[in-house]
Amino acid sequence: GLGPPPPARGPGSRGHPGAAAAGGGGGSSSAMEELATEQEAEESHRQDSVSLLTFILLLTLTILTIWLFKHRRVRFLHETGLAMIYGLIVGVILRYGTPSTSGHDKPFSCSQEDRPFTTLLVNVSGKFFEYTLKGEISPGKIHNVEQNDMLRKVTFDPEVFFNILLPPIIFHAGYSLKKRHFFRNLGSILAYAFLGTAVSCFIIGNLMYGVVKLMKLVGQLSGKFYYTDCLLFGAIISATDPVTVLAIFNELHADVDLYALLFGESVLNDAVAIVLSSSIVAYQPTGENTHAFDAAAFFKSVGVFLGIFSGSFMMGAVTGVVTALISFFFTKLHCFPLLETALFFLMSWSTFLLAEACGFTGVVAVLFCGITQAHYTYNNLSVESRSRTKQLFEVLHFLAENFIFSYMGLALFTFQKHIFSPVFIIGAFVAIFLGRAAHIYPLSFLLNLGRRHKISWNFQHMMMFSGLRGAMAFALAIRDTATYSHQMMFSTTLLIVFFTVWIVGGGTTPMLSWLNIRVGVDPDQDPPPTNDNSERRNRTKQESAWLFRLWYSFDHNYLKPILTHSGPPLTTTLPSWCGLVAHCLTSPQVYDNQEQLREEDSDFILNDGDLTVTYGDTTITANGSSGPHTATTSLDGRRTKSNSEEALERDLGAADHEVTSRGTRLVFPLEDNTMSCLSP
Amino acid sequence: GLGPPPPARGPGSRGHPGAAAAGGGGGSSSAMEELATEQEAEESHRQDSVSLLTFILLLTLTILTIWLFKHRRVRFLHETGLAMIYGLIVGVILRYGTPSTSGHDKPFSCSQEDRPFTTLLVNVSGKFFEYTLKGEISPGKIHNVEQNDMLRKVTFDPEVFFNILLPPIIFHAGYSLKKRHFFRNLGSILAYAFLGTAVSCFIIGNLMYGVVKLMKLVGQLSGKFYYTDCLLFGAIISATDPVTVLAIFNELHADVDLYALLFGESVLNDAVAIVLSSSIVAYQPTGENTHAFDAAAFFKSVGVFLGIFSGSFMMGAVTGVVTALISFFFTKLHCFPLLETALFFLMSWSTFLLAEACGFTGVVAVLFCGITQAHYTYNNLSVESRSRTKQLFEVLHFLAENFIFSYMGLALFTFQKHIFSPVFIIGAFVAIFLGRAAHIYPLSFLLNLGRRHKISWNFQHMMMFSGLRGAMAFALAIRDTATYSHQMMFSTTLLIVFFTVWIVGGGTTPMLSWLNIRVGVDPDQDPPPTNDNSERRNRTKQESAWLFRLWYSFDHNYLKPILTHSGPPLTTTLPSWCGLVAHCLTSPQVYDNQEQLREEDSDFILNDGDLTVTYGDTTITANGSSGPHTATTSLDGRRTKSNSEEALERDLGAADHEVTSRGTRLVFPLEDNTMSCLSP
Repeated sequence: GLGPPPPARGPGSRGHPGAAAAGGGGGSSSAMEELATEQEAEESHRQDSVSLLTFILLLTLTILTIWLFKHRRVRFLHETGLAMIYGLIVGVILRYGTPSTSGHDKPFSCSQEDRPFTTLLVNVSGKFFEYTLKGEISPGKIHNVEQNDMLRKVTFDPEVFFNILLPPIIFHAGYSLKKRHFFRNLGSILAYAFLGTAVSCFIIGNLMYGVVKLMKLVGQLSGKFYYTDCLLFGAIISATDPVTVLAIFNELHADVDLYALLFGESVLNDAVAIVLSSSIVAYQPTGENTHAFDAAAFFKSVGVFLGIFSGSFMMGAVTGVVTALISFFFTKLHCFPLLETALFFLMSWSTFLLAEACGFTGVVAVLFCGITQAHYTYNNLSVESRSRTKQLFEVLHFLAENFIFSYMGLALFTFQKHIFSPVFIIGAFVAIFLGRAAHIYPLSFLLNLGRRHKISWNFQHMMMFSGLRGAMAFALAIRDTATYSHQMMFSTTLLIVFFTVWIVGGGTTPMLSWLNIRVGVDPDQDPPPTNDNSERRNRTKQESAWLFRLWYSFDHNYLKPILTHSGPPLTTTLPSWCGLVAHCLTSPQVYDNQEQLREEDSDFILNDGDLTVTYGDTTITANGSSGPHTATTSLDGRRTKSNSEEALERDLGAADHEVTSRGTRLVFPLEDNTMSCLSP
Repeated sequence: GLGPPPPARGPGSRGHPGAAAAGGGGGSSSAMEELATEQEAEESHRQDSVSLLTFILLLTLTILTIWLFKHRRVRFLHETGLAMIYGLIVGVILRYGTPSTSGHDKPFSCSQEDRPFTTLLVNVSGKFFEYTLKGEISPGKIHNVEQNDMLRKVTFDPEVFFNILLPPIIFHAGYSLKKRHFFRNLGSILAYAFLGTAVSCFIIGNLMYGVVKLMKLVGQLSGKFYYTDCLLFGAIISATDPVTVLAIFNELHADVDLYALLFGESVLNDAVAIVLSSSIVAYQPTGENTHAFDAAAFFKSVGVFLGIFSGSFMMGAVTGVVTALISFFFTKLHCFPLLETALFFLMSWSTFLLAEACGFTGVVAVLFCGITQAHYTYNNLSVESRSRTKQLFEVLHFLAENFIFSYMGLALFTFQKHIFSPVFIIGAFVAIFLGRAAHIYPLSFLLNLGRRHKISWNFQHMMMFSGLRGAMAFALAIRDTATYSHQMMFSTTLLIVFFTVWIVGGGTTPMLSWLNIRVGVDPDQDPPPTNDNSERRNRTKQESAWLFRLWYSFDHNYLKPILTHSGPPLTTTLPSWCGLVAHCLTSPQVYDNQEQLREEDSDFILNDGDLTVTYGDTTITANGSSGPHTATTSLDGRRTKSNSEEALERDLGAADHEVTSRGTRLVFPLEDNTMSCLSP
């Protein structure tokens, strides 16, 4: 098939009518011959352009229809579902409407001795031509290869999804994750993403193994299907993508905690599913019986999982931190938002490449890079660059996502190696239902034991219902369709994606009202307060585990001040004996920018009392404050620990409620001259 | 070389540690074999990531240094010059710092009968592998192919430039062309771009043919070099790219007319140079003596030029108009700037693909698409989308441009087929100097005969001096480097680009002051007025030819009202018997939006008198106007012609001077209810 969008047009990359013919202008003897090759190359280039054009027109049509839907507030069909429908229609046209034979690239066979080389040099009447390996073709399909040229053109290299289309989608997810509610539910989200995905993968894998056994008994299975294949299917299909559900949540302003749980879970479980699938693939028992259980291979797989995951995580976090540092030190970049945006884009892309170059997973690294960028770098960017970077990645994400969904629709008809097995498909639907149930309900029960603010039954049902499968499941399934089992898995995944996107996407609005889930919620507003301040503080403490609290205070006191202009000055958070170091690491801007940045950062709503506490040992008097708070003044360095705790509670929503419940956001009336650094 | 950025990683596109190994999980016999192929593919993917990472780090470094330069107001080195220097340094490191042999992709030779196929099927111990044709390798270089893996990885497919990197650069040039001063100088710009480029190409081609003859006499020529090659070199090197000069002009606010002349010429002559080079390539005399003059072939070439140019032009204009119509009818898209931006991006990209699919030149089509989008579609976009589209293409243009310039620096050392011939290089420098002189001075003389507002000697010298060569010349030269003559041309082009970008770019500021060219000009301010209103009107009439006036009035009276919300209502511009048609085609929004859009459109500065005239047959009284104009009221449909003429003069800068010279921009105090349509 066609490599990436325009360039890798395989042979004859010279798009132009006669550019290459000129190259051979020297020898007139071979001119005719070259002309023929040239014409083939040109024809191939033209077909590539047409096939890309098809996708672009599909996307254009999708956009115009979405607009119509949004305009009329139609909610039963999301843009991704629509893109799939258009893709299906075009797929049918291409499959049954185009001539099915094309003679011109007749394959040539020649026997080679040992194993395939990546590069071939072929001697054609004294001239040498270079060929590159494209992949293996199963003997039964050789004759297919010759058939429909147009169908081959619209079939992309599966790695296009991983290297071009998924990174912007995943990065955007990470970059837009900066929500107070996400961090408030971090523990639950991590549990759902890691434990939940593993449980779901294992249960689906085992159920499918049962289905496969059954199929073998009934005689429905005409190829090999191992236990590892079943587990791989479990990993592939465990990647949820509630893009439709979240779009509706956003539109209806549904409950923010539920939104955070669903969004956080789906974002992180994509990462888990990718790494899980590569660890399952890495499970290769040695010795004679290669498909029995092998402890060494199992632990190797676990090691691979941990290694790839932590490596990718580190890679993403490190690039994010480096970008934050660059934007921290090169503050004058603010005057050139173009340079700032370009830098941001390049650094984020380099995360992907760096991870791939080191053998980790680029997509996972990009996710954590996005989160880090949102948490640190975003605070250092100029106002203009903030909106530019957001808009840039929004457009890229939108285009990539709709492209993948149109491609899915198209692939149902144009993909040439489909194997639809009714038993397997029905089994898979049952398995994903059971897998999702076994993932949500028991985990929620366990989490509710530790949570003060319980995950209600309605929320659990909604999470159960929202287990859509989308772009990630598709990309994982199409990555390898070489064997019988993988082809069957791919076809089944495609059907599951269709079904869940259309049915679940369309059922979200009725489901929300049926489950009595609050809509029209102001994201800054917390559930109605029932207890007094000390009880709320208590609740927050119980909710967040000690590990998280430790991380939070470290982040708040050291990372934020070092990496951004928005944290408290280091001079207030470091012990007094570090005064000199702290003073060097703190830019004078921190003091100046603090207030301004706070105001821009919509996730942090401060009232004057909090700010005074944060500033610890500087003496500030809040003028004109209308709140009931007493300004705590002249605290020394020993207050550090309680500082971070109070900031934590504030960020977790204990303190900001008072501000919003009074209906106004108070802005601290600060005089600039009182903000000068009074470090010990 | 490596195809496009990430995807076309040639063989083994499966980036992942074991994804493909799983595909072969079925047969354990060939597992080892596959593992080896897999490792090679993985290694190749890793190297691709590293090579892309190299470019990204180069760009990052460039951005940080540019920032430093901008911050300190350094003007002697432009970002593109800087990108080249960093590219050179990395090129030296790669060339001399990396091990020069890699054994693993040992080429395999097998004799084939007739002519190369685009696809090869190779049978390796019973398995079939598909290979695709990459290109021809000259016999002497076979041994080079095996050598340095890293150098091959950083060598991109030349078509990447034409299909990925040039389109955003050229589109951005077209999209940012919307300047009143451009249209005021359109005649001169077209003359410079078409006649000038042809003259320059012909003169350089002939001079170089003389140089080649000389080299043959002296015995410096070791390969074939035909007259057509010389002409091709003339076409390649006639594409000017004064990006550096214009950046400095922008910064210093140099004379706007000179800016428009330089910018317009360079943008259009890129298009002319591309099409010219493909027509020269299409010049292939038939019969025995293939390199003598052949009238049939010559006229065929002229036909190719006209066909490709007009076809590409049409394609770009049509897509632009379609986009304008979509944005005209789907006005509610305003509420969804994301959809609007995505649509705009997709439609602009589809121009490129459509042109390529039809056998025209995508890059040229994209240029005219950009101009059309700026002229029509831009007026229909929401305020948010205007800035979004501008910013999106600004970032893409910035990244692509700096990427090309770093690549140029790199290519000086990593490109493996350089042929540096001192005589040819010196000859080329002399030829481009003479070619530029023969292009600027005589043409300016001829143009000055017709222009009232002469192009002064200083301007001519500055235009002569600003003939930089940049991205387009490089992309044209690298497109085909198969033969001896083309390799020599490529190496020479590279040196010319380096020299002109560094020397001319650095010399712009001194040159401006030496030539006494005005800086610090307000773009809305015209040269100091010396004559009264009627004389000015006279001048405008003389300056713009009848053809242009015809086009302008057609555009103003019919196209703008049909395609945008910013023209006068059709009901006022169409004759009265078309009233019904006009009424149908005119959206009510035109009346509402008119004033608002006028204000946003910085290129149109209106005073009340003009607006009244434009509205022709509606009765409007200008309240509170402070100008000396009498409001002309109650004009009927017969005023159409003079309406467009007055609008033309206004746009061409005859009328707006009065407003700006009074120091304020008058806003028409309009009451909404008087704006209802009073069509006959």
